[in-house]
Amino acid sequence: MIERYSRPEMAGVWSEDHRLRKLLEVEFVYLKVLAEEKQIPSSELEVLERCIHKLSVREVQKLEAQSRHEVLGILEALSQKIQSQAPTLSRYLHYGLTSNDLLDTTLSLQLLQAADILLEGWKEVSAAVVGLAKQHQFTWMVGRTHGIHAEPITFGAKLAGWHAEILRNIERLKSVREVIRYGKFSGAVGTFTQVGPHLEARVCEQLGLLPEPVATQVIPRDRHAEYFNALVLSAGAIERFATEIRHLQKTEVLEVEEPFGEKQKGSSAMPHKRNPVLCENLCGLARMLRSFQAGTMENMVLWHERDISHSSVERVFFPDATILLDFMLHRFLMVLKGLKVHKDRMGKNLNALRGLVFSQKVLLALVDKGLARFKAYELVQKHAMRAWQKDQDFMPQILKDPVVRKVLGVQGVKACFDLKQMQPPIREILKRGGIL
Amino acid sequence: MIERYSRPEMAGVWSEDHRLRKLLEVEFVYLKVLAEEKQIPSSELEVLERCIHKLSVREVQKLEAQSRHEVLGILEALSQKIQSQAPTLSRYLHYGLTSNDLLDTTLSLQLLQAADILLEGWKEVSAAVVGLAKQHQFTWMVGRTHGIHAEPITFGAKLAGWHAEILRNIERLKSVREVIRYGKFSGAVGTFTQVGPHLEARVCEQLGLLPEPVATQVIPRDRHAEYFNALVLSAGAIERFATEIRHLQKTEVLEVEEPFGEKQKGSSAMPHKRNPVLCENLCGLARMLRSFQAGTMENMVLWHERDISHSSVERVFFPDATILLDFMLHRFLMVLKGLKVHKDRMGKNLNALRGLVFSQKVLLALVDKGLARFKAYELVQKHAMRAWQKDQDFMPQILKDPVVRKVLGVQGVKACFDLKQMQPPIREILKRGGIL
Amino acid sequence: MIERYSRPEMAGVWSEDHRLRKLLEVEFVYLKVLAEEKQIPSSELEVLERCIHKLSVREVQKLEAQSRHEVLGILEALSQKIQSQAPTLSRYLHYGLTSNDLLDTTLSLQLLQAADILLEGWKEVSAAVVGLAKQHQFTWMVGRTHGIHAEPITFGAKLAGWHAEILRNIERLKSVREVIRYGKFSGAVGTFTQVGPHLEARVCEQLGLLPEPVATQVIPRDRHAEYFNALVLSAGAIERFATEIRHLQKTEVLEVEEPFGEKQKGSSAMPHKRNPVLCENLCGLARMLRSFQAGTMENMVLWHERDISHSSVERVFFPDATILLDFMLHRFLMVLKGLKVHKDRMGKNLNALRGLVFSQKVLLALVDKGLARFKAYELVQKHAMRAWQKDQDFMPQILKDPVVRKVLGVQGVKACFDLKQMQPPIREILKRGGIL
Amino acid sequence: MIERYSRPEMAGVWSEDHRLRKLLEVEFVYLKVLAEEKQIPSSELEVLERCIHKLSVREVQKLEAQSRHEVLGILEALSQKIQSQAPTLSRYLHYGLTSNDLLDTTLSLQLLQAADILLEGWKEVSAAVVGLAKQHQFTWMVGRTHGIHAEPITFGAKLAGWHAEILRNIERLKSVREVIRYGKFSGAVGTFTQVGPHLEARVCEQLGLLPEPVATQVIPRDRHAEYFNALVLSAGAIERFATEIRHLQKTEVLEVEEPFGEKQKGSSAMPHKRNPVLCENLCGLARMLRSFQAGTMENMVLWHERDISHSSVERVFFPDATILLDFMLHRFLMVLKGLKVHKDRMGKNLNALRGLVFSQKVLLALVDKGLARFKAYELVQKHAMRAWQKDQDFMPQILKDPVVRKVLGVQGVKACFDLKQMQPPIREILKRGGIL
Repeated sequence: MIERYSRPEMAGVWSEDHRLRKLLEVEFVYLKVLAEEKQIPSSELEVLERCIHKLSVREVQKLEAQSRHEVLGILEALSQKIQSQAPTLSRYLHYGLTSNDLLDTTLSLQLLQAADILLEGWKEVSAAVVGLAKQHQFTWMVGRTHGIHAEPITFGAKLAGWHAEILRNIERLKSVREVIRYGKFSGAVGTFTQVGPHLEARVCEQLGLLPEPVATQVIPRDRHAEYFNALVLSAGAIERFATEIRHLQKTEVLEVEEPFGEKQKGSSAMPHKRNPVLCENLCGLARMLRSFQAGTMENMVLWHERDISHSSVERVFFPDATILLDFMLHRFLMVLKGLKVHKDRMGKNLNALRGLVFSQKVLLALVDKGLARFKAYELVQKHAMRAWQKDQDFMPQILKDPVVRKVLGVQGVKACFDLKQMQPPIREILKRGGIL
Repeated sequence: MIERYSRPEMAGVWSEDHRLRKLLEVEFVYLKVLAEEKQIPSSELEVLERCIHKLSVREVQKLEAQSRHEVLGILEALSQKIQSQAPTLSRYLHYGLTSNDLLDTTLSLQLLQAADILLEGWKEVSAAVVGLAKQHQFTWMVGRTHGIHAEPITFGAKLAGWHAEILRNIERLKSVREVIRYGKFSGAVGTFTQVGPHLEARVCEQLGLLPEPVATQVIPRDRHAEYFNALVLSAGAIERFATEIRHLQKTEVLEVEEPFGEKQKGSSAMPHKRNPVLCENLCGLARMLRSFQAGTMENMVLWHERDISHSSVERVFFPDATILLDFMLHRFLMVLKGLKVHKDRMGKNLNALRGLVFSQKVLLALVDKGLARFKAYELVQKHAMRAWQKDQDFMPQILKDPVVRKVLGVQGVKACFDLKQMQPPIREILKRGGIL
Repeated sequence: MIERYSRPEMAGVWSEDHRLRKLLEVEFVYLKVLAEEKQIPSSELEVLERCIHKLSVREVQKLEAQSRHEVLGILEALSQKIQSQAPTLSRYLHYGLTSNDLLDTTLSLQLLQAADILLEGWKEVSAAVVGLAKQHQFTWMVGRTHGIHAEPITFGAKLAGWHAEILRNIERLKSVREVIRYGKFSGAVGTFTQVGPHLEARVCEQLGLLPEPVATQVIPRDRHAEYFNALVLSAGAIERFATEIRHLQKTEVLEVEEPFGEKQKGSSAMPHKRNPVLCENLCGLARMLRSFQAGTMENMVLWHERDISHSSVERVFFPDATILLDFMLHRFLMVLKGLKVHKDRMGKNLNALRGLVFSQKVLLALVDKGLARFKAYELVQKHAMRAWQKDQDFMPQILKDPVVRKVLGVQGVKACFDLKQMQPPIREILKRGGIL
Repeated sequence: MIERYSRPEMAGVWSEDHRLRKLLEVEFVYLKVLAEEKQIPSSELEVLERCIHKLSVREVQKLEAQSRHEVLGILEALSQKIQSQAPTLSRYLHYGLTSNDLLDTTLSLQLLQAADILLEGWKEVSAAVVGLAKQHQFTWMVGRTHGIHAEPITFGAKLAGWHAEILRNIERLKSVREVIRYGKFSGAVGTFTQVGPHLEARVCEQLGLLPEPVATQVIPRDRHAEYFNALVLSAGAIERFATEIRHLQKTEVLEVEEPFGEKQKGSSAMPHKRNPVLCENLCGLARMLRSFQAGTMENMVLWHERDISHSSVERVFFPDATILLDFMLHRFLMVLKGLKVHKDRMGKNLNALRGLVFSQKVLLALVDKGLARFKAYELVQKHAMRAWQKDQDFMPQILKDPVVRKVLGVQGVKACFDLKQMQPPIREILKRGGIL
């Protein structure tokens, strides 16, 4: 677990102690159901539950060191604890299970918890984006393609695009939450040697899970891979947004700025610097998550009924990836909440090309009035090039053209440069993006 | 496109000609709707449709070379063709659109087609696996964990696990089919400068698509990334199955063999060799698809309202990935259809450890009768180790133990080695895996 | 092979025909050495050489289709050709070899050729960068960190950094050229069953190769992985340079522009646009190469003395990667040769922060004169922040400060803003970067 | 840092405390050289050195939390400490440097240390492999291609192949050690604003480094990427070897076994199991390292004179990757030292195909005696197929053939099955692999 980038909520999901609690909970629920089904005696369940609560990570680790086997370490520690008080039950510990029944079911429970925390994070981000987008519904700025000024958009419309992607990521996490919501109690190679499928179903139900339809010794790893892919898509979204902010904060652009602490210093050498380091960091973190994807995909291909090559990868990548994404969501939330939006600068930049960003409007107005598209294109391009080269305003330039004047009239030309006329579709975009 | 691994069905989706047809179809439907909406005249639509059919890839490529811009090449070629016959319409070509409206909408249509072909492939594979699994419902073989003999399973149960994963992959493809089913006609930076959102909705509907809620100049690339992830999961499944076959075909194991042509030669030097080269190839192809994933994820992060860095990656990876997966499905289908299953060898291998694979059954039977788990474990392990070291049968060895004899009786011990008793959960597994 | 991004020089290395020629050449040299060593008769070598020249790809492919084995296809085709004229030799074809002796040795030869072409490409790029850097040795512009203006640099110094990286990549390619310069003639599992190690050494020598010290059936794939890594590093360098150009071409920055064809069109809708599409494309291509890396690394782990899972991956990735990198080098060369450098804009941007980029110079001048670093820092930061917020020139602002005035004097302050004084280390940087 | 897979030697390189020590050492050496060059006074250096030793991680972290800037935190902590005793020097702290001069130079020093530890690890592994290979120089076993029996090799020859790859990896690590051996003291954007290039050279020399020829604000990241690639190649080698052991330990093969602790338990359910979990774990760890590669490659492309997106990736991946590889080397060493080699089983398996593995020897003997290759091939294949199908010994089968008998004679046939005759090239292979 990467301490520097950990929030306690998510780190808690992956703590040694929490994991042990979950493993013991799974074992307990399993035995409880066995008792309910009269397969084992029920008299000592209460004692077991009490002992489970007292078992500590340290006790387990001591025995694990000996057996070099995690689950056996737990069972031996537990067995020692209940031996005197619950001698009958002690012999039914883990009855009919293989270690991995505990481990995989517990992993599912942890991944569910992680998904819930991530969903919370996305929802907070969603709310922040909605707020910002409403506020800047008609804050006009230049839209850029290839880094070059294209046509006007509003900052709200840009954020609506972000929000639509956020909603998709929320759906994705909900969807993979269902994909991973499976437990397994089918024993050694998944053949229910000792306890039947119906019993697995009951245990899973009590744990809020579904029974894995067909397992080997493990829950098939395509589930985990699919879950992971959703994390990568979420991280990619944040990276896209963070990259945008980095671009918009560049000295020459400076349309937005990420928050900057009072006492924070941008550089040990240059006192004037306010660097978008939070957003740069978000890009780096996304890079990491994306890297983890490769190993997680390879994990799908286990030999026969299982090998354990995937285990170390999961032990590192699942905590790290969920912790990083959780951190990213909350760091991004912080960026959003403190984001400075320089409307004046947006306006200034929008006008930097002196009206050229309206060239398509003129082009299509000409087409509307009967010019062939390619003629209109050549005509507009000629004037656009001239305005560009002479660094002059485009509107007077195009107004000089006799054809344009004749076809569109002065009012017609002016209408092409009027942002107000472009507002209705912007409202529609915000609606579509879940903002309004 | 990788010719060696191409089936014509899928290669056709990505052919230059098919792509041009689709691009032109999209342009045509767009203009048709514009005409229906009275935004442009409708009189010349028929002529347009005829001209579109006659336009060839060669004509387009000539003009594209000049403008170094794909869509402009197409439009100019088309314009030249209709100029005389449909002069009015010629000026409305591409009216209000940006190139990418055509390109991205067309890409969606191609990805839908690809998904449909892949779904067909998976369904054929599914049917083949079902057939094989039914046939081998009770073909007992050894289950292996860590490559080491574990407990008995049946070949049918193994295949049921494959089939459950296949069904998940079919669901995944269906699901991403919906994710990618979006078109875009919102113009330059997605702001509907010229034609309104309602019109986009109508065009999309006629093309069998939904309108992208909020686009930049492009359909957001998280959709494409999510689609791609499903391809990688599908490929991973086939790799898992192919790896299993490779293992089962190893000389010492030889429980199955992939088909081997009459005239095929396994080696230029060793005439006796029958190598699982088809399955090895499938593993290599999966490796390729997995590699492509990284670049596709990076594609999500475009600058501002779009840059074109993703374009080359998609131009190569989408055809290559869908073509490879399609090829994999059909090669795997061929493997399944010609798979030789050596039941005798499965039986022989199952018995190779002389009954040790039933050790857990004995262990749990002892627990059932009142022994503490860890005592039973030690006892069984002692005899297991002895049988193992002396290469003797486990059953007589365990029967010699006075405690075991007393607790279980001879019949009780024998029952632990009886495969018939293990059949009911196997049936359940096949049901759960969609086989029965 | 990706036609769109292929130059004929590199595509030729990977053509079916060239590959066949190389395979036959390897077979021929091998037999020649056998004959020189008197292991086989030498009388018919001349006939063989003639027949080899006449063998066509089509003839081979016909027989390959039958045997489903590439090398056997070649040998049978050749055998048929020489049977009547060189009956003795015909039986020694491939004597003591395994298919892979031909295939791997040929792959090495192809990878050597590819490396040579790439080295030529880098050298041309190097020359272009040197020329540009010399020209702009003292073309001052702003250095940017985190996208924010930092301190002045020269465009030449920036290019010197590129060039130093180019020189490292040339060294890398030379180095992996040696890594891959290995042939193999040790037969089936690399044990020289038929022909001894000394003979392998002689054949390799005649082919310009070294004998693989210890092979399995294949030349170990860590060599190929190492070679590939060098390609990825080269591509990464070009991506870094291309990304820089994309940034410098952004509308607000516009310090450089990649070449733009006379008839080229930047957009189907916006006639004024000149997009850095070449550089964006270079970034996409680098993304692809980087993706290929994962599969190539996985290829290292073959089972036992070989499996063939790596083959398909190599069949696609090696041609594609070398072809793409070759294309990238020449596309980048084109960008460099046509690069427009807007010196005026560089000067204007350098001054955009009104002198704040010299703040560190002032800070350190104060330290030089005896101020504590943190006091000087606070002082400079105070004035910097004020100038920044009021959008005023930094120099007059700092000159107003009584402490600064007293400590540095007016001349001392002015010296901090003098670019001339910064020239000597720039010259040194250009020397270190191999420019001067 | 991944505690579970950490050895203290390597974890120490990346500890907070060690890093702080190194950072302070770099700052100190820098100031010392400045003093030697008379740029700053030297009288208080001794005091500084003493204070540096006393500075604790905790003190630094407190101030870092405030400034949210690591290097500033260190400098402020140090400044507070020396203020009263070394007031003059306190104002020259960090004189002319940018934070990254410290950070990158320190990272280089850490990567050098890591490389040295890894080299030690590989050397120990090398020695272990040499010992094992000598011991098993002529321990014959079957060579397998595609998992199918091919021709005889010796275990020593197999290990010689491993060793040759180990030697290459040692060379690689030595080589990237040189690549990363660079420091940087050129200030903010690498332009030596305050202190000249010659001084950087002197500081670097005292630290055992070379000066980075042309830096931006950072040492160019292609160096780090190249370094990382060497780690991945090393991990890939171990994965190859571990995969081989996993294969050889499979129940049906069982030619080697990794060490298994006395009290270790293979399974919570199956007492007889001895699973190759160490080698499976090694494969998982390699998978992780390979995953990290993607992000490290992306790190090469920083914006302009630097952004900080790479920082988080390096903060995690460099410690993790070197720690994992170090762990892998020592875990693999442990596997080698405790490896059980079952010579009897190797012999038994070699004979499993009843002599078919000698078929090529017979084939080539026939060719030697004048048969056409393809005739000999057909002949041998016919008998091979028959022996295979009837599960009979190949030698008597082939001896029945009148042609074979006539051409080779009984002795000639028997010689084809004689392993002794194959020993000389085996010795040569061991020599080439650095064993003998």
